[in-house]
Amino acid sequence: MSEISSGNTRKVEVVPSPALFPVYFENTDCIVVVIDVFRATSAICAAFESGIDSLIPVATLEEAIAYKQKGFLVGAERNAEIVEGFDFGNSPLGFKDGQFKDQTLVLTTTNGTKAVDMAKPAHKVIIGAFTNLTAVCDYIEREDKDVLLLCAGWKDRFNLEDTLFAGAVVQKISQNLRFTNLSDSSIAAVNMFNAAEGDLYNFLGESSHRKRLSRLNMEEDIIYCLTLDQSNIVPVLEGDVIVSSNK
Amino acid sequence: MSEISSGNTRKVEVVPSPALFPVYFENTDCIVVVIDVFRATSAICAAFESGIDSLIPVATLEEAIAYKQKGFLVGAERNAEIVEGFDFGNSPLGFKDGQFKDQTLVLTTTNGTKAVDMAKPAHKVIIGAFTNLTAVCDYIEREDKDVLLLCAGWKDRFNLEDTLFAGAVVQKISQNLRFTNLSDSSIAAVNMFNAAEGDLYNFLGESSHRKRLSRLNMEEDIIYCLTLDQSNIVPVLEGDVIVSSNK
Repeated sequence: MSEISSGNTRKVEVVPSPALFPVYFENTDCIVVVIDVFRATSAICAAFESGIDSLIPVATLEEAIAYKQKGFLVGAERNAEIVEGFDFGNSPLGFKDGQFKDQTLVLTTTNGTKAVDMAKPAHKVIIGAFTNLTAVCDYIEREDKDVLLLCAGWKDRFNLEDTLFAGAVVQKISQNLRFTNLSDSSIAAVNMFNAAEGDLYNFLGESSHRKRLSRLNMEEDIIYCLTLDQSNIVPVLEGDVIVSSNK
Repeated sequence: MSEISSGNTRKVEVVPSPALFPVYFENTDCIVVVIDVFRATSAICAAFESGIDSLIPVATLEEAIAYKQKGFLVGAERNAEIVEGFDFGNSPLGFKDGQFKDQTLVLTTTNGTKAVDMAKPAHKVIIGAFTNLTAVCDYIEREDKDVLLLCAGWKDRFNLEDTLFAGAVVQKISQNLRFTNLSDSSIAAVNMFNAAEGDLYNFLGESSHRKRLSRLNMEEDIIYCLTLDQSNIVPVLEGDVIVSSNK
């Protein structure tokens, strides 16, 4: 009997919004990939690629302020801008010069870190972005678990860029026969990614978040966030702290 | 100045799941199109096309039983099957012979009638299905309101067929310049509809709900539900009762 007919296939589901996470989170013994392409998870991947030791994601500004008062380096973003008084925001380019090498950072963002928070009861929570796509897929293939691709979205709304990344993961891992148990949301995401694959930048031209960032002159960030495989590190949550899986 | 630059465009958003309705329902002065292609809204359209007078949607089996005890003709479906003791389920083909002509029916279904219930505070709640696609688009174009396309989904999960219908509506009405303010979920839905348009039946071959119905030998229902423009009636909610907008 093949793996498929013996029921050994692993379920892959795309969660279109954090507000739907409780609906999809039936089997907690799964890997949750947190996705916030513009820009929290791209920034976290860039931070690890630049050599940081670890990152503590916090959901609220209150927690971020508490860490700041304890002397931590703390980043905070709300509505796509750095919150006044904090050390950095969620621009991945802010980590390019390696200024935070070997440090522990704290970060709170509008959507991304909240998604990490809600996924904590899962077997593993990892951080995905186009910039570490292949590394994420390799990680998923090594673990024998179902997969939830959790799109952080924008204030609980569906968004295009996170769904496209989820579709890229589904496309890549479903070439492996153990991942053929696709949900409707996975089928939709992979179809969308197939349509967009040749030119993510233009496909996202009309998207709400790209327009939001463009108004803030963040075109460089957008291009960075849409460039595949700039890092082979998979940031993974251990307890309350994100560390590199490659250590 | 064009209508677009003067800000007169109307917002069209696809709500991928009833659980996200509160997130998208910011402007209550809008038209909500309730969509449950397999099969509640297709059945409601078929019932009106067959000549029923009106239909009372109820969210719970308890309410349905109460109406039955008062002598109403009551339909109830749960998990794609007629609930024992009720007069009909949500198969659109059940209305073909006109047996309920001029009657008032009561109906509760797993997903569809709950979606109608939550949309009640809107300016107008109408019933959409592939079987009345053009009539729905004409109705929307006549009213000067924002539009929410509410996918009933399956137990709060995203589903393909409802999103495809939403995409069909977006594609059709966005040819009208007043509907160019598309959300990310609308862009995704219209892209998916463009990919599926030539062969909805096969595009939905792997979808969860088509598989669920196929197991119950409901292929005839599926084909009916995917056949465009079999009715020019738009069922519309007036108070707690759905009536024909053509009366």
